[in-house]
Amino acid sequence: MSGLWYTEKQTKNFGITMKIKETLHTEQTEFQKLEMAETEEFGNMLFLDGMVMTSQKDEFVYHEMVAHVPLFTHPRPENVLVVGGGDGGVIREVLKHKSVKKATLVEIDGKVIEYSKKYLPEIAGQLDDPRVEVKVGDGFMHIAESEGEYDVIMVDSTEPVGPAVNLFTKGFYAGISKALKDDGIFVAQTDNPWFTPELIKNVQKDVKEIFPITRLYMANIPTYPSGLWTFTIGSKKYDPLEVKEERFHELDTKYYTKDLHKASFVLPKFVQDLVE
Amino acid sequence: MSGLWYTEKQTKNFGITMKIKETLHTEQTEFQKLEMAETEEFGNMLFLDGMVMTSQKDEFVYHEMVAHVPLFTHPRPENVLVVGGGDGGVIREVLKHKSVKKATLVEIDGKVIEYSKKYLPEIAGQLDDPRVEVKVGDGFMHIAESEGEYDVIMVDSTEPVGPAVNLFTKGFYAGISKALKDDGIFVAQTDNPWFTPELIKNVQKDVKEIFPITRLYMANIPTYPSGLWTFTIGSKKYDPLEVKEERFHELDTKYYTKDLHKASFVLPKFVQDLVE
Repeated sequence: MSGLWYTEKQTKNFGITMKIKETLHTEQTEFQKLEMAETEEFGNMLFLDGMVMTSQKDEFVYHEMVAHVPLFTHPRPENVLVVGGGDGGVIREVLKHKSVKKATLVEIDGKVIEYSKKYLPEIAGQLDDPRVEVKVGDGFMHIAESEGEYDVIMVDSTEPVGPAVNLFTKGFYAGISKALKDDGIFVAQTDNPWFTPELIKNVQKDVKEIFPITRLYMANIPTYPSGLWTFTIGSKKYDPLEVKEERFHELDTKYYTKDLHKASFVLPKFVQDLVE
Repeated sequence: MSGLWYTEKQTKNFGITMKIKETLHTEQTEFQKLEMAETEEFGNMLFLDGMVMTSQKDEFVYHEMVAHVPLFTHPRPENVLVVGGGDGGVIREVLKHKSVKKATLVEIDGKVIEYSKKYLPEIAGQLDDPRVEVKVGDGFMHIAESEGEYDVIMVDSTEPVGPAVNLFTKGFYAGISKALKDDGIFVAQTDNPWFTPELIKNVQKDVKEIFPITRLYMANIPTYPSGLWTFTIGSKKYDPLEVKEERFHELDTKYYTKDLHKASFVLPKFVQDLVE
């Protein structure tokens, strides 16, 4: 069929719309509606419950920024957990750090992994790496069962509707703290300040009550609502703003740089106001 | 009429779409198609030739970032020129600097001024300030006729199609250099790195041949293509990265801060690659 456009309503009254070259797969999984399509502008794209998850053209921003900011903040990350992230993009970036001995992915929906491997091979291609363990299961439960285990935990979830609703609660952050080692760090995607300022505010408040160092940083992701995405870091010991210059090493990236590491924490005034 | 949505195709294959509360005005002016509408998400919005120019909700980002970065870079800006910018938003921000004695606006399309005053009063409300001179005319010609006159020139144009096509040429930048004083600075909006990387690259190349200090900085504007907007600065003497801490003074802003002034020049790697 030609002439198809996919429209994501990012709010009740605002959306983005993309010309579709080919629809690739549509399925109601056990957890959500999974759609894969080839778009003219952004290449292959994954949608869950009608929301853009990732695209071949701009995926590097999200995946690099989730992974490298906490991994450079930790002096020697060895054991890393990714909750969600079944497309494999965060894992791909995690593996760029030589210190990492093991990266565990816990994705609730095995279909996301299956179709990402099929249609987003540049993103999912490292999921079979020997350093990676893939578990199909509930991230919330996995966290609840872990204790003092991880150096870095990354929460690469969908929005706080559907299967990810538990991943935006104070109980979850407390569980994460328990699952981390004494000097562990966690990061979560926390949506955008234009349409969901309250979410950012609430997460910051909750995380601050559990982690001594709590920070917000940002990146530009054109296919995500407002184009301005936020990430919340909670850290037990290491401050992402105080990474020593010599700790940065060369990485093959398209968005992240060591200068951007710090600049991404410098917030516009209206965003700064949300976290104070 | 209810159920209306306005869709801007930002590229051939990608667009944004907004629910309209009320259409306010539509007119083919001498220069372009002017449309004003009240949207549910962003308040009143101005469109020229089908492209979003400004909205009540997010206008502060663009206007603050065009104005305050060069104005804080110059140690004592007194005489300022805005080319385009008929909505008056840049002028409003310029007037926040007490050192400014005169701000001239040269807008080619008087209808933009007229309907901005009517439907965007918070943006256009300072156009009648005694420090402001409004000229309806061709900015390119105004620049060509000026010599050694301005401390800061801001080019607040539409995209390089339609009436603004001359404002993205090396001849225009040479004219700007002539119109500036010996220590003058200019800034121009230069679109986004996702859909128009070549434009940024070409403008940087052209400006570098004329101005000893050429820099690119960025801001997030949700209603503009990709959400990531760039601004090119050309400066004869003052480097925006070397503004002394004590030069910053308090301003009532919602986006710009003195820390963001410098952070906005720290570019993602793929953008940095365009300017090197």
